[in-house]
Amino acid sequence: MQFNHFSIIDKSFDQELSDLTSLGFKFDTSSTAKVNLKNWLLTAPIAMTSLAATNQETVRDFLDSETPLTWNIFYAISLQLLDFVANFDFQLTEAITFANSINLPLVDLSAETSPKQLISAIYLLMNSRRQTGMTLVEHWVSEGLLPLDNHYHFFNDKSLATFDTSQLIREVVYVESSVDTQNRGEYDLVKVEIIRPLFDGKVPAIMTASPYHFGTNIKANDDKLHQMNVDLVEKPLDRIAISESTLTLPDYPATEIPSADNNQATEHFTHTWTYSLNDYFLARGFASIYVASVGTRDSDGFQTSGDYQQIAGVTAVIDWLNGRARAFTNRQKTHILTADWANGHVAMTGKSYLGTLAYGAATTGVAGLDVILAEAGITNWYDYYREKGLVRSPGGYPGEDLDVLAELTYSRNLDAADFLVNNPAYQKQLADMSQALARTSGDYNAYWHARNYLPHVDKVKADILIVHGLQDFNVTPSHAFNFWHALPEHVTKHAFLHQGSHIYMNNWQSIDFSETINAYFSAKLLERDLTLDLPPVIWQKNNVAQSFEELPEFGGHDIEVLPLGFAGELDQFENHYPAEIFDQYSKNFQTFKTDLFEDKANAAIIDVHLPETLQINGQIVLDLRLKLNDTKGMLSAQVLDFGSKKRLTDVSTLLEPKTIDRGRNFMLDDLRDLTLVDKPYQVVTKGFMNLQNRQQLTEINSVIADEWFRVELRLQPTIYDFEAGDTLRLVLYSTDFEHTVRDNREVSYTINLEKSRLYLPKTKKERHKI
Amino acid sequence: MQFNHFSIIDKSFDQELSDLTSLGFKFDTSSTAKVNLKNWLLTAPIAMTSLAATNQETVRDFLDSETPLTWNIFYAISLQLLDFVANFDFQLTEAITFANSINLPLVDLSAETSPKQLISAIYLLMNSRRQTGMTLVEHWVSEGLLPLDNHYHFFNDKSLATFDTSQLIREVVYVESSVDTQNRGEYDLVKVEIIRPLFDGKVPAIMTASPYHFGTNIKANDDKLHQMNVDLVEKPLDRIAISESTLTLPDYPATEIPSADNNQATEHFTHTWTYSLNDYFLARGFASIYVASVGTRDSDGFQTSGDYQQIAGVTAVIDWLNGRARAFTNRQKTHILTADWANGHVAMTGKSYLGTLAYGAATTGVAGLDVILAEAGITNWYDYYREKGLVRSPGGYPGEDLDVLAELTYSRNLDAADFLVNNPAYQKQLADMSQALARTSGDYNAYWHARNYLPHVDKVKADILIVHGLQDFNVTPSHAFNFWHALPEHVTKHAFLHQGSHIYMNNWQSIDFSETINAYFSAKLLERDLTLDLPPVIWQKNNVAQSFEELPEFGGHDIEVLPLGFAGELDQFENHYPAEIFDQYSKNFQTFKTDLFEDKANAAIIDVHLPETLQINGQIVLDLRLKLNDTKGMLSAQVLDFGSKKRLTDVSTLLEPKTIDRGRNFMLDDLRDLTLVDKPYQVVTKGFMNLQNRQQLTEINSVIADEWFRVELRLQPTIYDFEAGDTLRLVLYSTDFEHTVRDNREVSYTINLEKSRLYLPKTKKERHKI
Repeated sequence: MQFNHFSIIDKSFDQELSDLTSLGFKFDTSSTAKVNLKNWLLTAPIAMTSLAATNQETVRDFLDSETPLTWNIFYAISLQLLDFVANFDFQLTEAITFANSINLPLVDLSAETSPKQLISAIYLLMNSRRQTGMTLVEHWVSEGLLPLDNHYHFFNDKSLATFDTSQLIREVVYVESSVDTQNRGEYDLVKVEIIRPLFDGKVPAIMTASPYHFGTNIKANDDKLHQMNVDLVEKPLDRIAISESTLTLPDYPATEIPSADNNQATEHFTHTWTYSLNDYFLARGFASIYVASVGTRDSDGFQTSGDYQQIAGVTAVIDWLNGRARAFTNRQKTHILTADWANGHVAMTGKSYLGTLAYGAATTGVAGLDVILAEAGITNWYDYYREKGLVRSPGGYPGEDLDVLAELTYSRNLDAADFLVNNPAYQKQLADMSQALARTSGDYNAYWHARNYLPHVDKVKADILIVHGLQDFNVTPSHAFNFWHALPEHVTKHAFLHQGSHIYMNNWQSIDFSETINAYFSAKLLERDLTLDLPPVIWQKNNVAQSFEELPEFGGHDIEVLPLGFAGELDQFENHYPAEIFDQYSKNFQTFKTDLFEDKANAAIIDVHLPETLQINGQIVLDLRLKLNDTKGMLSAQVLDFGSKKRLTDVSTLLEPKTIDRGRNFMLDDLRDLTLVDKPYQVVTKGFMNLQNRQQLTEINSVIADEWFRVELRLQPTIYDFEAGDTLRLVLYSTDFEHTVRDNREVSYTINLEKSRLYLPKTKKERHKI
Repeated sequence: MQFNHFSIIDKSFDQELSDLTSLGFKFDTSSTAKVNLKNWLLTAPIAMTSLAATNQETVRDFLDSETPLTWNIFYAISLQLLDFVANFDFQLTEAITFANSINLPLVDLSAETSPKQLISAIYLLMNSRRQTGMTLVEHWVSEGLLPLDNHYHFFNDKSLATFDTSQLIREVVYVESSVDTQNRGEYDLVKVEIIRPLFDGKVPAIMTASPYHFGTNIKANDDKLHQMNVDLVEKPLDRIAISESTLTLPDYPATEIPSADNNQATEHFTHTWTYSLNDYFLARGFASIYVASVGTRDSDGFQTSGDYQQIAGVTAVIDWLNGRARAFTNRQKTHILTADWANGHVAMTGKSYLGTLAYGAATTGVAGLDVILAEAGITNWYDYYREKGLVRSPGGYPGEDLDVLAELTYSRNLDAADFLVNNPAYQKQLADMSQALARTSGDYNAYWHARNYLPHVDKVKADILIVHGLQDFNVTPSHAFNFWHALPEHVTKHAFLHQGSHIYMNNWQSIDFSETINAYFSAKLLERDLTLDLPPVIWQKNNVAQSFEELPEFGGHDIEVLPLGFAGELDQFENHYPAEIFDQYSKNFQTFKTDLFEDKANAAIIDVHLPETLQINGQIVLDLRLKLNDTKGMLSAQVLDFGSKKRLTDVSTLLEPKTIDRGRNFMLDDLRDLTLVDKPYQVVTKGFMNLQNRQQLTEINSVIADEWFRVELRLQPTIYDFEAGDTLRLVLYSTDFEHTVRDNREVSYTINLEKSRLYLPKTKKERHKI
């Protein structure tokens, strides 16, 4: 295995000693290193008797013997404390070699084992990960090193789990938003679940906004799915004008309402879905807040699906935490209550729609939102259901559209009484939405523009932490990439780009993700100095297990041009499939994908041998000379790293169940990681286009049958290492049974390879392995 | 979906009313049914405002209206309480139809909705499962219906979750066994982890004995794996005599040792692996006990792997709980402590090795062990690693043997200090074990006899609850079957036979397993009447989702004879493969299996068309006339249900994460179940034999080349429904790359089909669907 530490903050020796002392360890630089080692081991919550120092001496014997302390002995003992098994995982005589092989952070081994050096080594070790997924200090705290005193304790500037999770307060409030999505003449209330630790001061909040939180209506979702087996439609020439819409919030008079007794919530709850990263922070003195916003179970309003009304239902909670909005003890608004326990600082977390609402909230510039951790979030809803004038379903979800997602998340219909009263009006609004999203044309319009957060990045005040999987073809990497590049210079931003698909990375073995976020949130939300030195981009290497690199940028500026053919070389592909194959592919798009990648489907396949290593960083651009024998058509393209090789899984593998403790025996989490498996090829990137939209998204052009034209297709951004000798396979085709409408007309496409090329963006030369 | 309820106990109306009253519900039979319904709904921890009664009325409106209460309205409301979504999962007007379709227990609908009938219906409903995996009463208790008063409360004779899991005591004691496996002149101490609720009386214990509990040494296991690519060895003629060995326990004098202060344990723990069924009982007033027995981390002794010394290290804990053995606060034996909190009643639980030790402990007849729930346990270790004179690896684990498992579970080597001191002596004992297990011959001997619990069933006093997967080819169903049939008449026994492989079934949606065990354990361990009417066999139907049947027996007595061929018909197969294929199969036995089942490997394939339905129940016996051109050989046989069809997965699928609450927001468990998927065929059973052992296990005969002989091969027991028109495929072959040694000699086998037949055991005719 391989560790990758990003959370460890450099400290002076005095700070190290002070941190260690605050945990109850006693060191004395006037004693020998060995005496200091002994005192440390005796204080630690471990069974010292189980440890060996060498092949001849147990640690007990060693501490009583004349054997000098060496770095190898120190690390031999340390590795045992990190859960590695001596004599099996590593040999006691070869501790340093092994420690190096797993990328364990080490002190300068050329220095002698002086008391000070030893203390520094202990400090570094305690900030390092154990094999089972927690840092040594966090493991020891969860084993009882510090009392559960409901007060903050920091080690290396990260908050420790000293809040008693058996005393957590779980309460419900109803926050008043500033929108009226149902046109009732009243502001929509949104239900908020709060879980917070006992503390005699004010605590910050980690908020996760999820329309799924109070339930989803899967049956309604499935009933609403769109038919994919339809032909592409020819669109009239057009130039789409988008006017900037501003969200005007209704202005209703606030009525005078009495305060709740002792400002206490009256509704409590036992069960709720929680995000394990939020659980981790709960035990460390950060409240968890869950909100589903308007149009969800127990909240008011209709599901507006991604617009700034839905966002306003989220930011209202931040306003309430900062005394700028009202909350009530119940939906009848009998009593108001203030967030007197909140320090006003908020971070938002969560994946997918959850990360989407975090992006959206950040673009309002709401005060109090200090940082967002947006994981695989959408930054422009058009890019989720459309691509360049084409209906393009998210990977794995053919037939979905924003009205389908509205049905899924309009969880008010899960309550039959609510269904009875409100569903008729909701269905009218939904029918309007189905019209507005212009599925027939696939074009951008005002509806989508109102669900695009990118034009509003100038208002961002929060720090932006992005997590995105480079194999995520559900919420594609373009969402992260476009937000990253749209952000103004002054906004602080960092990205974790992993090699998974649409997944969380907070419980992986190889990277101290939670601890890194701890260092960040502890600084931002508790008004402490941000001492963490986080690189702009943390990129997980592909084709290598458990290896992360620092990169200066997402999107390289060096461009390599790759010609696709020699003089006069043409290639072609058909669109049409015989009925039987068409049916088979329609029923199971995985079969189509396998055939497509192995050159058994309708596609032009261009294999390019790469003689040297190549790190793609950014959007590969296809520059093609194309013709087809029809007046409408679509272009699909995928780039593969072709050839059998060990490659990373795109979902994480369970390594050990319930080994990560989020507090002190609280919400145990599984240890997981991406692992290497044999794969015949790897998708690197892909892209889709309606050829009528080839010039600009908002410009509808004609396609003239049998006439050559030029197409520039920008593929999904990625960062990908090709090795010397690899084969880059470019697959060009039209109908894609996973993503596009399944047009089965007889259309032939021809490519002039001589006049076609790939532009490959590369990372700047200077980069550092860490 | 489909419910299958086995935990519901018939009660008189007065008992029903009394149970309901004890939960705080107030009923009045002199009021109308509707008033009683209203009072019940108002007391329940639900949001009544969210419910609808009809397509016109919410429940609130209905209760205030003149609309009469009908059974359909009652079940329309009830289904919503069970988490079904009105208007989507079911229509309010069709509640009874839907309730029937999901096999929900219903009252007599022909009776009028009188107050008494309504109360009975409410009682039945509260004992029924919600879609999300808990009964309604258990869900409401976890939502706070009863206070956490650390006292027992029963509903329908099952204990409720009223013990506060945030106050659990977690302590370690070291129990003195009566064995000295390391020959130290001292009894081995075994480490015991206890988790117990606060209670002012004495509580029973659910004990799980697992040699894996304090860690496993996977590296040592893998290093010890045996080479499978070896030829079968010809054995000299022999008759193996086994003398009955009795375990003589050493008799060391007990020293006088002071008691612990206030009889309190001094060692505590935070983290440990727990079994979620035990967690469920913790919240209901049953202590959890975990013990790994001799030769494991922090215990004394060597790993004896399944013999009665290892069992003695388990039963010692039961002795201690009953005041017959000593325990110490630490390994230095400075202070003793008694189990003054224990009522002496013990149940054992757990799967695989854990179930094995439960079987073993039961065969000692130790007093205090009232019931075992043995899940996929081994009852005879020979049958785990051998079959009829043949080395036969457990499914999925080629190369494993009992010495390999010893290395895996001798977790003392995980502690480097212990390795230093004890490993040299342990390796000697392990070398002896490797000799004793007679891997070369594959024959039964005294070593295996000492690890066979079947000869000791006459001592069993505990009730025997068996769980076994009929698709478990790791620990095969024969272990359960043989124990079942060996047990004396007077022992109470029940079996849950599911269609999974080597898996737990306690968190499935379709069957109220935990609740059924609750009814059983509450009676046996709390000295209450056993009112549960549990059938002998609960069998999960194959090829049907979520359907369980009661059966009177495991092993039918009606035998159907199936001839395999017509006059003069022969079939034959070869043993040898070309090197390339042999290598491929050796590297990946799944490839071999796929080829084997699809008639692409070396095998005789006999397809039998079944014109009528057939329920196999027991061991299919092959009666074959065979010859081969060699003096040693093995016979492998598999029976398939051949042909594409929807069939159950053999591992459970995640339906919803963390929806089962084991207490009150305590150890949330995932909801899972076997689900239907397309499969080209299904393995029904299999069996293996060394042809030299064809007469009896303990009789080594010769095989004379090119001479016909008769073989009777008894396959793994199962219960399996073939449908009319199905094809039973019999696959006969020699080398099996998953299970047997990979002999690659050139041997030809010939079968005289005319003189061969199958004996198919069938279930007795009268049986009831429940």
